[in-house]
Amino acid sequence: MASCLVKFMPENRTIEVKEGTSLVKAAAQAGIYIKSGCGGKGSCGACKVTVLSGHPEVKGTGRLTQEEIANGVRLSCQTFVYGDVTLEVPPESRLQEHQVLMGDVQKGLLKETEQDLLEKFGLHPLATKVHIQLTEPTLTENASDWARLQLELRRVLSMSSKPIDIPLSILQTLPESLRQAEWDVSVTLTDLENGYTVTRVEKSNERPPYGLAIDIGTTTVVVYLVDLSSGQILDRQGTYNKQAKFGDDVIARIVYAVDAPENLPEIRKAVVDTINELTDKILDRQGLQAQDLCVAVAAGNTTMTQLFLGIDPRYVRLEPYIPTMNAVPSVPAKEVGVHILPEALVHSFPSVASYVGGDIVSGTMVTDMANGEDITLFIDIGTNGEIVLGNQDWLVSCACSAGPCFEGGGILFGMRAMPGAIERVNIDRETLDVSLKVVGGILPVGICGSGLVDGLAKLREAGIIDRAGNFQMEHASHSERLRATPDDKEFVLAWAQQAGGEKDVVITENDVKNLIRAKGAIYAGIRSLLTMVAVDVDMINRIMIAGGFGNYLNVHDSVEIGLLPDLPPEKYEFIGNSSVKGARLALLSQNAWREAAELGRKMTYIELSVGTTFMDEFVSALFLPHTDLSLFPSVGV
Amino acid sequence: MASCLVKFMPENRTIEVKEGTSLVKAAAQAGIYIKSGCGGKGSCGACKVTVLSGHPEVKGTGRLTQEEIANGVRLSCQTFVYGDVTLEVPPESRLQEHQVLMGDVQKGLLKETEQDLLEKFGLHPLATKVHIQLTEPTLTENASDWARLQLELRRVLSMSSKPIDIPLSILQTLPESLRQAEWDVSVTLTDLENGYTVTRVEKSNERPPYGLAIDIGTTTVVVYLVDLSSGQILDRQGTYNKQAKFGDDVIARIVYAVDAPENLPEIRKAVVDTINELTDKILDRQGLQAQDLCVAVAAGNTTMTQLFLGIDPRYVRLEPYIPTMNAVPSVPAKEVGVHILPEALVHSFPSVASYVGGDIVSGTMVTDMANGEDITLFIDIGTNGEIVLGNQDWLVSCACSAGPCFEGGGILFGMRAMPGAIERVNIDRETLDVSLKVVGGILPVGICGSGLVDGLAKLREAGIIDRAGNFQMEHASHSERLRATPDDKEFVLAWAQQAGGEKDVVITENDVKNLIRAKGAIYAGIRSLLTMVAVDVDMINRIMIAGGFGNYLNVHDSVEIGLLPDLPPEKYEFIGNSSVKGARLALLSQNAWREAAELGRKMTYIELSVGTTFMDEFVSALFLPHTDLSLFPSVGV
Repeated sequence: MASCLVKFMPENRTIEVKEGTSLVKAAAQAGIYIKSGCGGKGSCGACKVTVLSGHPEVKGTGRLTQEEIANGVRLSCQTFVYGDVTLEVPPESRLQEHQVLMGDVQKGLLKETEQDLLEKFGLHPLATKVHIQLTEPTLTENASDWARLQLELRRVLSMSSKPIDIPLSILQTLPESLRQAEWDVSVTLTDLENGYTVTRVEKSNERPPYGLAIDIGTTTVVVYLVDLSSGQILDRQGTYNKQAKFGDDVIARIVYAVDAPENLPEIRKAVVDTINELTDKILDRQGLQAQDLCVAVAAGNTTMTQLFLGIDPRYVRLEPYIPTMNAVPSVPAKEVGVHILPEALVHSFPSVASYVGGDIVSGTMVTDMANGEDITLFIDIGTNGEIVLGNQDWLVSCACSAGPCFEGGGILFGMRAMPGAIERVNIDRETLDVSLKVVGGILPVGICGSGLVDGLAKLREAGIIDRAGNFQMEHASHSERLRATPDDKEFVLAWAQQAGGEKDVVITENDVKNLIRAKGAIYAGIRSLLTMVAVDVDMINRIMIAGGFGNYLNVHDSVEIGLLPDLPPEKYEFIGNSSVKGARLALLSQNAWREAAELGRKMTYIELSVGTTFMDEFVSALFLPHTDLSLFPSVGV
Repeated sequence: MASCLVKFMPENRTIEVKEGTSLVKAAAQAGIYIKSGCGGKGSCGACKVTVLSGHPEVKGTGRLTQEEIANGVRLSCQTFVYGDVTLEVPPESRLQEHQVLMGDVQKGLLKETEQDLLEKFGLHPLATKVHIQLTEPTLTENASDWARLQLELRRVLSMSSKPIDIPLSILQTLPESLRQAEWDVSVTLTDLENGYTVTRVEKSNERPPYGLAIDIGTTTVVVYLVDLSSGQILDRQGTYNKQAKFGDDVIARIVYAVDAPENLPEIRKAVVDTINELTDKILDRQGLQAQDLCVAVAAGNTTMTQLFLGIDPRYVRLEPYIPTMNAVPSVPAKEVGVHILPEALVHSFPSVASYVGGDIVSGTMVTDMANGEDITLFIDIGTNGEIVLGNQDWLVSCACSAGPCFEGGGILFGMRAMPGAIERVNIDRETLDVSLKVVGGILPVGICGSGLVDGLAKLREAGIIDRAGNFQMEHASHSERLRATPDDKEFVLAWAQQAGGEKDVVITENDVKNLIRAKGAIYAGIRSLLTMVAVDVDMINRIMIAGGFGNYLNVHDSVEIGLLPDLPPEKYEFIGNSSVKGARLALLSQNAWREAAELGRKMTYIELSVGTTFMDEFVSALFLPHTDLSLFPSVGV
């Protein structure tokens, strides 16, 4: 098969690819990651590039305009190389490094309390390292190498009666390991409830055992390096999930994964590569080696967990939405492909159902809600809104498809919370003039989730939209910001000359309707859980909000648009990336890990598509703030 | 690197090999296995071939005569190809198929009792297969695939409280396995004391679960196919261990294995290939597939077990003779490379010490000696003589280097018990005329172990040798069979014209001395054990003899030469290949497998090189039958 040269601008980077390669794949080969909202179906238009020279074959143009096509704009997922090509990848089509939420304290409008539960659970990590001094064998003291080591291990591990196993790979080199170390060794072991397993035998040294806490998000992946002897977080690193090139959300990823037999290994490798890059960066920075990492705990949603382990995900997507497993087997790193000690175990948090995954179980553990009488509402808002409600006696959970609005998807100028994103909006009620707060303090190019929530509240306050989200065009007479276009109505947040792009940054009526559906879905999910367990909203003692978007959220705005229940601000707490925080706790504490397993079993999953409760609640929630205003006494209408 | 063509005669088979390949390796590539007594050191002369054309490079000639060299005879391990070559591999240099002792009843001079202990241990195999009918999931019955399967497994497995695990590889395809089978499946599981593990999920069927019992002998490998549901042996197959090309005995194998980093994988592969060839042959014959085999149990000596699992064997050979482990971890077949269900476990019998291995533990189990008051002496005679003595209260064991005599090594016309081997000898006391019994009833070409024992007894009876093994040359006057050569003295068993070869088949004084040392070592081992536990020989209730050579042994002859204690013949029992018999029991019975583990821990190993007991006994045993004739009252001197 012939090869073609593809040059990328402005990098001026040229690579060779096989004939028939799509531009999006060619870009990935060149290390340039192009957005893909629809997983390469040609429907989302996120992957636009401009062909500067050459004639790649166009198999689809999606929603490109005739003008764009004439100017060389192409959908990179629908355009294939059959000769040399030069193209430009515009900034808006690129996946970029952004502020990945790594669980450290972020500035927020409300207090964020990071409650360290380690003291409560107790430090007893999932892996340990001990120093063993053996006596040399003789003709009369001729126990086998392993018996000799095992006996001494048992003594050092406080005569524990747990079995101590050794895998074949360690046995194969045990004789040399012991003798080269002159019988003075450091032994690393996994330490589980039902037994120890030796994972490394090396020359005696003082390095502590280390572990990795991993949050596998659909969008971003975060890794913590943890010193297992002290519990200290030594380093952390986060980046985009390389799976993003196969689609923005879990559905697109599943569709891609099951489309061809080679896709599942490919998409699995993408997330493993992401984790390995982060890990390698940390190891490099800390002067450590992969072999020093003797355990990892990962938390991700059900789809991310199944893809991470190469488990066929297709029935997660198809009704009746059955995951392959909830409790996940712990697997040696060499089998998963993660760059740590090959025999070290990689543990994954259990799921509750296809759409309430290990990240939520981890977060639930971090909220400590299952250990007191207080009723807690735990919400993780992303593409899906996952909700957990309960206390020590009962826990119910559900997932509601909020859609990608809060992450910038389905919104004309939507974007993630990266530099250039509008995060706060103010609208003068008289003049309808606008003042903005933009991430990074630069010129605005789009709007992120918190900006959208704020914007929606302010549009309503200024009377630009009614309670159903309809634009009130009578105001157009005294502000040119409000205007009608051939297809829609829109409000200009930033004029082109004040903005970073070439166009006015606007929010459309269609955007507003999408936002109302999204906030309605989450609020309806909360109401459905409350209804099903017959708990009144006022009985909620704490609302804990996790996740990338949740971290920037303004409670006042959120209540005003009816996204969150109308409860006093002091009941709200933002806990950041609770998924990685829980993974760290599990690394460090067998009690925490046991609680995680229990939470996975104990939490009741409510399937919202069964019965009419959710749909009734959803329809009622399609107003600002709600059809039933008595639910929002603090909101002036 | 250039290639050369090597043609083998009389097969007329031509293969292409890399320049610099030794003739012995080239032959192996052509599927022709050449003997190697010394592991390719050029010292044993077993690997002679004749070069018919071409000029391979000779790097050593060992003990080849000038005449042989002139006639094109070469040591195939010391001769290397740098151009095209044609060579002939004579029959005596080939490893041949022979009567591999597979544990079935062989004709013997004494009764052989095969005691089936299965009834005592009880049928409860190490793997099981169950039929599971699942209900299809719905939106309201939405347990995960694995939870659904696990719940039903638990019900079918009699609500067993043992944990049920599932490996990642099975989870990865579980969704499709269940749905393609329309929720009606057969599930195969390993069944161990501490839990079950799923090893296969397939469409419901009636095939029983099968297992493999494997005896990994230094010389031969034997495989049984066992129906785990009935305990029946359905098929069996045995052949040479392909490791033979790296040396005849465990020492030569270890030396080869540790000589270069690539050797251990190579020698490991040789035995795995041997097992796989046998297994494939059986599967083919029985119309089964590798996936139908859901467990394997292997028994071998310590070196064979370590090589089978790729475990560095070097310290088995070096004082103080330390094995890497005695209890052997059970390992999934995919990791070992054995052609059975990839997730099925391969269990290996535990060893006691470097020279009392799993084959002896297996045999000890088969003797049932650890379950009664009777004192049993268990002997396995091969290159090493392994001896176990004891009863339910105590068990001691030792190993004595008998040398390879009884397997034909170190004897001028020694050979294994294959067609052409003299197995019985009669010598007329007057005329010194000889009559012979030959394996296969063909012309004699050499002498096997039982023939040597018988021959030694008859030489002594006829007065041709004295009690120390010295040839009595005064008889040479009335028989030309007894004659002196420049280097030695010899007795002709078969004249060339009556023999299958070109030379007279003789037994030399040097052979006799070697045999006396070998029998002396075994008898001294027995005496040492008796002495150390202060048991008189008459207190032994049963003597059980296992092993390839032991199976053909004549007790009367053995006592007469002082190889075995002078006890009534009815105390002797021959149990054939007890190693594979024990492996079958373990496959079928958890109680048997537990007993094997206990035997491994419980048996005391006596290192004969410590102290003077063994050496004193050995020196005393270097007479026929012994220095102390009171030990052999039945033997007329």
